[in-house]
Amino acid sequence: MDALEGMDETALSDTFRTIAAEFGPDQAGLETAIHAFDAADPASARALHRASEPRTQELLRRLNQAPGGTRSLVRLRARLLKIAKSDPVLRALDGDFHHLFSSWFNRGFLDLRRIEWSTSAEVLERIIDYEAVHAIQDWHDLKSRVSSDDRRLYAFFHPALQDDPLIFVEVALSGEIPTSIDSILSPDRVVTRSKDATTAVFYSISNCQPGLKGVSFGNFLIKQVVEDLSRELPDIATFVTLSPVPRLRAWVRHQRINPSDEEMPRQVAETLQKLDPDQAKPTDDDALMLAAHYLVHAKTQKGQPLDPVARFHLGNGARLQAIHANADQSLRGQENAWGVMVNYLYDRRDIARNQEDFATTGEVKFGPSVRRLLR
Amino acid sequence: MDALEGMDETALSDTFRTIAAEFGPDQAGLETAIHAFDAADPASARALHRASEPRTQELLRRLNQAPGGTRSLVRLRARLLKIAKSDPVLRALDGDFHHLFSSWFNRGFLDLRRIEWSTSAEVLERIIDYEAVHAIQDWHDLKSRVSSDDRRLYAFFHPALQDDPLIFVEVALSGEIPTSIDSILSPDRVVTRSKDATTAVFYSISNCQPGLKGVSFGNFLIKQVVEDLSRELPDIATFVTLSPVPRLRAWVRHQRINPSDEEMPRQVAETLQKLDPDQAKPTDDDALMLAAHYLVHAKTQKGQPLDPVARFHLGNGARLQAIHANADQSLRGQENAWGVMVNYLYDRRDIARNQEDFATTGEVKFGPSVRRLLR
Amino acid sequence: MDALEGMDETALSDTFRTIAAEFGPDQAGLETAIHAFDAADPASARALHRASEPRTQELLRRLNQAPGGTRSLVRLRARLLKIAKSDPVLRALDGDFHHLFSSWFNRGFLDLRRIEWSTSAEVLERIIDYEAVHAIQDWHDLKSRVSSDDRRLYAFFHPALQDDPLIFVEVALSGEIPTSIDSILSPDRVVTRSKDATTAVFYSISNCQPGLKGVSFGNFLIKQVVEDLSRELPDIATFVTLSPVPRLRAWVRHQRINPSDEEMPRQVAETLQKLDPDQAKPTDDDALMLAAHYLVHAKTQKGQPLDPVARFHLGNGARLQAIHANADQSLRGQENAWGVMVNYLYDRRDIARNQEDFATTGEVKFGPSVRRLLR
Amino acid sequence: MDALEGMDETALSDTFRTIAAEFGPDQAGLETAIHAFDAADPASARALHRASEPRTQELLRRLNQAPGGTRSLVRLRARLLKIAKSDPVLRALDGDFHHLFSSWFNRGFLDLRRIEWSTSAEVLERIIDYEAVHAIQDWHDLKSRVSSDDRRLYAFFHPALQDDPLIFVEVALSGEIPTSIDSILSPDRVVTRSKDATTAVFYSISNCQPGLKGVSFGNFLIKQVVEDLSRELPDIATFVTLSPVPRLRAWVRHQRINPSDEEMPRQVAETLQKLDPDQAKPTDDDALMLAAHYLVHAKTQKGQPLDPVARFHLGNGARLQAIHANADQSLRGQENAWGVMVNYLYDRRDIARNQEDFATTGEVKFGPSVRRLLR
Repeated sequence: MDALEGMDETALSDTFRTIAAEFGPDQAGLETAIHAFDAADPASARALHRASEPRTQELLRRLNQAPGGTRSLVRLRARLLKIAKSDPVLRALDGDFHHLFSSWFNRGFLDLRRIEWSTSAEVLERIIDYEAVHAIQDWHDLKSRVSSDDRRLYAFFHPALQDDPLIFVEVALSGEIPTSIDSILSPDRVVTRSKDATTAVFYSISNCQPGLKGVSFGNFLIKQVVEDLSRELPDIATFVTLSPVPRLRAWVRHQRINPSDEEMPRQVAETLQKLDPDQAKPTDDDALMLAAHYLVHAKTQKGQPLDPVARFHLGNGARLQAIHANADQSLRGQENAWGVMVNYLYDRRDIARNQEDFATTGEVKFGPSVRRLLR
Repeated sequence: MDALEGMDETALSDTFRTIAAEFGPDQAGLETAIHAFDAADPASARALHRASEPRTQELLRRLNQAPGGTRSLVRLRARLLKIAKSDPVLRALDGDFHHLFSSWFNRGFLDLRRIEWSTSAEVLERIIDYEAVHAIQDWHDLKSRVSSDDRRLYAFFHPALQDDPLIFVEVALSGEIPTSIDSILSPDRVVTRSKDATTAVFYSISNCQPGLKGVSFGNFLIKQVVEDLSRELPDIATFVTLSPVPRLRAWVRHQRINPSDEEMPRQVAETLQKLDPDQAKPTDDDALMLAAHYLVHAKTQKGQPLDPVARFHLGNGARLQAIHANADQSLRGQENAWGVMVNYLYDRRDIARNQEDFATTGEVKFGPSVRRLLR
Repeated sequence: MDALEGMDETALSDTFRTIAAEFGPDQAGLETAIHAFDAADPASARALHRASEPRTQELLRRLNQAPGGTRSLVRLRARLLKIAKSDPVLRALDGDFHHLFSSWFNRGFLDLRRIEWSTSAEVLERIIDYEAVHAIQDWHDLKSRVSSDDRRLYAFFHPALQDDPLIFVEVALSGEIPTSIDSILSPDRVVTRSKDATTAVFYSISNCQPGLKGVSFGNFLIKQVVEDLSRELPDIATFVTLSPVPRLRAWVRHQRINPSDEEMPRQVAETLQKLDPDQAKPTDDDALMLAAHYLVHAKTQKGQPLDPVARFHLGNGARLQAIHANADQSLRGQENAWGVMVNYLYDRRDIARNQEDFATTGEVKFGPSVRRLLR
Repeated sequence: MDALEGMDETALSDTFRTIAAEFGPDQAGLETAIHAFDAADPASARALHRASEPRTQELLRRLNQAPGGTRSLVRLRARLLKIAKSDPVLRALDGDFHHLFSSWFNRGFLDLRRIEWSTSAEVLERIIDYEAVHAIQDWHDLKSRVSSDDRRLYAFFHPALQDDPLIFVEVALSGEIPTSIDSILSPDRVVTRSKDATTAVFYSISNCQPGLKGVSFGNFLIKQVVEDLSRELPDIATFVTLSPVPRLRAWVRHQRINPSDEEMPRQVAETLQKLDPDQAKPTDDDALMLAAHYLVHAKTQKGQPLDPVARFHLGNGARLQAIHANADQSLRGQENAWGVMVNYLYDRRDIARNQEDFATTGEVKFGPSVRRLLR
């Protein structure tokens, strides 16, 4: 394991290639199992499954037995992902990592911990490093995010990675649904006392381990935090996000070049035509109208929402509750979406049904204010 | 999960059968993958592996997400094993549990803990319950086994099972290699001070979780304890077991009825003929000669030692160091092996080579005193 | 410190005597301070206090700096108490220990911990050893007392004594005020679920450290447990003891020989005359009448209740709620009080007032059923 | 307690005065005890001690029983010290606090903990706040001081103050005795690996609790750290400080105005005469000569070293090993001592003897290089 971790990129790339080539399934055994396969005999299917298992699986299981093995494997996969990019052989090898990690990092093995000011500096420093949405300025900012009475920070940990979090969510407690990120992040805000709060706002979710890409924790994290906060502060009735719309302007830009065939309300189509997103900022009304259309109707080939954040929250059972213009003055917020932000609402009574509907029909649930924007 | 755990044996058996029937691999997908298989295309092999995965795997991974899920699944498999017995359908389902558990209970996820008198009574009570070799009489006996200066007890734990051990080993510290179990268990023994000890004796190893049958921990446990004890007490130079020979008499009985074809020293053959194990006890010399032959030469069809304890330790890289007559006066010791016991020696310099040789050629390594018995 | 702890009784007794003789206050300094004392000058009073401090105090403070010092000093005082008995010199030395221990073992430095089945066996074994009221039969009995849903056990710990408790109380949760100890201790009792309980019964309080004699913890322990239980189980409205009357028969015996001068209801006087406590058991009615009179009216020279258990609970602010005949079938219960037991009631609304009244006027508060017995 | 803590300075000052006036010893009892005092009767001396105890002691012991009581009392004394200054009544009250705190904060009740990067941010933030000698710049600087391989930080804690340290010492591991503070604090220094270190340098000691003024922990802290480091890193043979000389220039200034009568080497006297410390910086040789004389010979009226840092380390059994010019370029270092710094050496073989000699004769032990400076 030390040898693997010590390799430079070239050596590691070669080694990955060798592994991919040498540790596929046992060819002879696999062909035997295929010949022996009999649709009427479940045992033959299981034998086929065993025979087709790439030997990478056993290799990774053995490497995992070394002290600190899991941690090393997660780091190795992070490097593999960088090297692999679109190389099909290495991507297949990455698939083998992903297959095993999905099983090992099952939610049943994860601990939810609240991160506080009494938490070890080692963990807190990682939180600063890993925050990917709204950067933590310094230790003072961090202290406020973990110990101010109107703030919570929760993270998932896996025992084999000990004090290195997998994912975390930052929560603001408030008396209302926020319409701009500044109202949350401002150090001058009026602090809502936790016992007076009616609303919990998920304002930042960050994945921490590039080596665990594609293993999804966010869904479980949000649900568990909703659960725990409801128990601790029963007066909190509303669980909502304040989320970015990372690809809004990119979509507008793309639409002007390759307009999609889909039917589109005339007003949306006209606005798309007249608006050059690299020249002028749309009016607030136009921005909201475009965002609403984009979030509800723009889909991938597989019929999923084009916007990754929308895909995540709608897939988890949230609904698109509201869209706000001028909600994010940061450079990134302006560049990605002219400052438009979104509330996704987690209503405990609807989560399961929304999730089911979304999974089966792709239906996007939205609130009345979004409905008006769509007209 | 609660529903499953609440079922009586009949209902559970039916449910297991339903699962086995309904959660095999997706038949259509599997056949497609078989048709698409191309030996020259590794991607097609991986697709076949995915398609052949029994959907039980995903079912179990989902069930594991419930609170306490892992614990429940381990209990369910224990019940499945009881029900399944020789039923091929249920044994196949058990294979699916085993496949997943082998991955989840990878040594990389286990903690070794020393069990002491300061350990929680909850854990200690389980040790009493789980001890399967030399029963712990009461809390007084337990206290001596965990806190006497010449005793150690180490256990493996998995984070998802928290305070429920998977396997544990009991160690006696001594100034010499023991030749009888009574010299170890006797409350009247002279206690060797740990700092004066030269020898660590593994005198009892117990698996705790019937639901983890077939997932092997013992090998790792012994090696880790050898490692840890060497560091703590550098004067300990000898690591040895004092082990039973559970099937010696059964083998003798069987040989009289179905003598094996294998070539056998004349003296062994004659002794086997003249000895009726249900009538008379052999002389010590005969018992030792028979035990040596049995342990070194008696093999399963796959060429493994017939004796399960020998199989375990030799497979771990130990060698058969010595055989003792009259070493175990207990009823079980007499019934199984006329009181014969064995030292397997773990020599840190030879473990890796022995293990390799045993795995490839089946060669059983033994010490000079055993060599003399085999002549 | 090791030298002191290693001494046999004779050597230790000599050493204690030497300390008592050599480590009194500095005689010259003390006389100077007395001469310099000026009632109008507070500084001179403080100087006098400093000058009169026995140098044992500084000696003990220095001994306490040794590793494990506090633990050793507590053990030494336990031995001193045994040796001292009525020897005035050693009793004065014991007074010096007591003075310092009262300050060091201030309630502000104590931790209340609930003892459970997950507690370390080391602590639990001490609980078995220390239980002084209703002996714990074995580990099975202990397990029931700490982990049955209708049982609680709380102890005070001091950081310097780590896992060695100072005092503990055992609590039974119930649906009613108990009238006999058997209804609590019986393994065949119907277990009240904690969430259904309305009454918490303190049925056993044990001091653990003979070396801390005279440093009182019980009062704080009971109040803290009342506090904690009220918060955890708000449906518990009644906090009550089931207590022995350890000196009832001794008092009756003494009254027959040395009748007290106090005025006494005729019926009590007559019963005392006719009853030979070593010959016959009184009727239940007589036993109750005598107990009521004894508990409410029999006093020490200082005007405190003669019965030590009554003194403790009444001094803590409880009231004498009820008296039960045939409540304790144990040998000790019969020998001390013909099986009579008592409920002292801790009513949170009255505790402070009762305690105040008792401290100032010696008034014993009692319930209506006791009032009837006193008529 | 809350009422006391909530008071502003005026109200608190009044309250302190009232307490000082009302909670002195019981006047009548005290006079009785004085009259009853009999030099031949130890019991009468003890009675006098009891009678002369200011009732503040009992008051403080009662206040300490409140939740968080100890912490509050320590804070209150910090405020008392500020208010008291030279007011004799309040200083007498402060003496009562000091008397009790000296007993409560006995070394036997303190825990030594190593502070690391895995320590809670809450504790680490306090370390930043409390560092009084060489300010910690930011969290990056802190991380280096607690987790660089050549750095250690140890603190004493009291259980009743939980995570609030009492005192801490910062240690640099090195291959040699340092001659300037910059060589220690510089981020560009070559990091000595802990296993290669031969020398442990105590370069900063900070008291944390103004409310514990006069209760001394430093002596015990250094000895315990010497003990612990010796065990962990047996190759460390030299334990030494790098300390400031806070009053050197002040002493020179004072000597020019009020030359002391003491006999003085001619060269020292001449240098003192010609040197105006507010005008010119002395040559290195002159600075070293003056410092040597000051540290070894300048004494308080009680015969203690005038320099407080010298008093502390010499009183602990260290010897004055070496004096360095230009060792501290900081403003404070220049203003106090023209940058002169000192090594005090803790030689485990001599500590006890040095301490004894210093306590009885006031003798200052010094090394050969200091001897040369004194000629």
